[in-house]
Amino acid sequence: MTKTDILWATCFVMALAAGAFIVIGRGRRTRDEENHWIAHFIVPILASLAYLGMATGQGELTLGDGRTFYFARYLDWSVTTPLLLLGLMLTSLKSPFRRWAVVLGVIGADIIMVVTGAFADASTHASAVKWIWYTISCGAFFFVYMALYGTLSREAAKDGPETASVFGTNRNILAVLWLIYPIVWAFGPEGVGSLSGTGSIAAYAALDVLTKVVYGAFALRQTAKLTTLEIAGRRVADADLRTAPAVYAEAHMVVAPEPAH
Amino acid sequence: MTKTDILWATCFVMALAAGAFIVIGRGRRTRDEENHWIAHFIVPILASLAYLGMATGQGELTLGDGRTFYFARYLDWSVTTPLLLLGLMLTSLKSPFRRWAVVLGVIGADIIMVVTGAFADASTHASAVKWIWYTISCGAFFFVYMALYGTLSREAAKDGPETASVFGTNRNILAVLWLIYPIVWAFGPEGVGSLSGTGSIAAYAALDVLTKVVYGAFALRQTAKLTTLEIAGRRVADADLRTAPAVYAEAHMVVAPEPAH
Amino acid sequence: MTKTDILWATCFVMALAAGAFIVIGRGRRTRDEENHWIAHFIVPILASLAYLGMATGQGELTLGDGRTFYFARYLDWSVTTPLLLLGLMLTSLKSPFRRWAVVLGVIGADIIMVVTGAFADASTHASAVKWIWYTISCGAFFFVYMALYGTLSREAAKDGPETASVFGTNRNILAVLWLIYPIVWAFGPEGVGSLSGTGSIAAYAALDVLTKVVYGAFALRQTAKLTTLEIAGRRVADADLRTAPAVYAEAHMVVAPEPAH
Repeated sequence: MTKTDILWATCFVMALAAGAFIVIGRGRRTRDEENHWIAHFIVPILASLAYLGMATGQGELTLGDGRTFYFARYLDWSVTTPLLLLGLMLTSLKSPFRRWAVVLGVIGADIIMVVTGAFADASTHASAVKWIWYTISCGAFFFVYMALYGTLSREAAKDGPETASVFGTNRNILAVLWLIYPIVWAFGPEGVGSLSGTGSIAAYAALDVLTKVVYGAFALRQTAKLTTLEIAGRRVADADLRTAPAVYAEAHMVVAPEPAH
Repeated sequence: MTKTDILWATCFVMALAAGAFIVIGRGRRTRDEENHWIAHFIVPILASLAYLGMATGQGELTLGDGRTFYFARYLDWSVTTPLLLLGLMLTSLKSPFRRWAVVLGVIGADIIMVVTGAFADASTHASAVKWIWYTISCGAFFFVYMALYGTLSREAAKDGPETASVFGTNRNILAVLWLIYPIVWAFGPEGVGSLSGTGSIAAYAALDVLTKVVYGAFALRQTAKLTTLEIAGRRVADADLRTAPAVYAEAHMVVAPEPAH
Repeated sequence: MTKTDILWATCFVMALAAGAFIVIGRGRRTRDEENHWIAHFIVPILASLAYLGMATGQGELTLGDGRTFYFARYLDWSVTTPLLLLGLMLTSLKSPFRRWAVVLGVIGADIIMVVTGAFADASTHASAVKWIWYTISCGAFFFVYMALYGTLSREAAKDGPETASVFGTNRNILAVLWLIYPIVWAFGPEGVGSLSGTGSIAAYAALDVLTKVVYGAFALRQTAKLTTLEIAGRRVADADLRTAPAVYAEAHMVVAPEPAH
């Protein structure tokens, strides 16, 4: 298979996955499932568009040192990785509003990771500045890990053992899969160049399918399981059911007087 | 009128509209009216800046096939169309937080529509890839329509017949006006090229004034009517009135214990 | 010191500041302190990256008129100035959700200020269009001032004299420091050019350290003082303490029936 074959194939796999996610999403029962589903559904759509851009040659630039810079990749990652993290944070926090600054901080660190990675890629081959950007990107990645294994794990634990278990599994899968990206990057044409251009494209394609499609479907399955338990345990508020009228659910919240406990 | 004349004229119309919106906004009484007003007020300001950029020649690039690519147009649309949709979604949902993932999904589909439209425009004249991007853009547009006529219409209906009526009218106006854009695009220099450059610029200018200024002012008027009914019916919480102190409104919300119904 | 020396030095100062902010943040006790801390912590990190980009020459472009366009500066400002404003708005509003459209509007005006400033910079030296963009940028700045001295000051006053005092001090410091930026801009190579390139870089570096590091640390100190008063006065809800379990804090809010007062 040539580079272009792999790019077209991945484009189609992502488009099919988006279609499959529509079917999977039909069974959603609660607002929480809806939130998860929307986050995970957008991911393969964006990936499919990025791969289309790379397959047609519109998502690439030729750099001064002759290398091909696939900028579409970084555009894709700068939106899809925050969405995957959002899904994970929803499992832990339920609502993104309760600790919104943590959500913002994690997504901020993630975007810094992707953007500095793009700068590293665009920097001249074998230059010192390339590896400075790479190190910063890894540092931002480390912050994301710290939040996933620190604050967000503690929040999941507070929600009970089932949530903690689901969050722990999802977190570990994503943490391991994401760890392979900077390794492929370092050995590919973006880094030292011991991996061929085609090899690097194939590796990213495999990783993208694993994280965006396989993990995405698994995460939705996990959310569905958790939701079944929550509904059975009567822990879902009526307003959070998709069948609920819930008109004034949040628009007219009860307002507390100044607390004086 | 030359192209440049039309662009300058539209720039001034948008600036005047922004000034008129300041006057219109003076009468707002509730937080809900304030939210609508801010969303609609930003729209002509951004449009005015985009038309200034195009009138001065800074918002355009010459493509390889000799066509002029007005990238300022897509920058404008990528922010103003989400704002117009936000206004529409506020009419239906009241609060953007209650079903935040739906709001995010609709805005996401809308941005995909604009960005893939820009890719279609920048693709070589009469190339297959141009019409692939165009088809994808129309597909994203279809998702926006589905949400407007599905979920968001149902939410508006839950809020009562007055909201449903106002939402229905606004939705239909915007849906029809927006439908003309991809038709102008397809016949203009961006598409098959049967419409002249000046004709296409004039058509977009007319549509932009209709959707951003005329529809914007109408939507604010509709919100004002609805608010009058809500205040008369005592359906506005004290904290949502602009005159209210409302200090701890959301900062110190009453927290429910784990529901066990 | 050469231009590059100043850029590298500022890059290191910002990195050190980010490290110092980690230490400062260790003592945070409430969600409110956490929100402030995350906003202020991201600022020097992004500034450090922007200065790294400018020091290595990757964050600049040479314009048609021979001037150097430091686009990294505007990328930095387009994210860090909203974050500084967010910190200020949190002091006044406590929650960004209560008057979210005001928060969005202020950040929108701020981003328009930065982006039109970038367009002014990139416009040809001594052209009329440069000063049109500059005037628009100052107009957007004026809107930010109006919100800071109008709506946000009133909101801070509603929260009590201590909040009003802290907000007033922070607002005045930031307002004066930010006012120097467009003056440096107007006299530097971006404007009339009476200030040398090195002088302009040194002036921006000093201002950036003052607003992002010195003011940032001061604002966090102010928030800590206010928090101490609030905890002493028992005005912090249990769920807002970092030590609180607060699992269902927002996910399962009490929902009010349709108000009929």
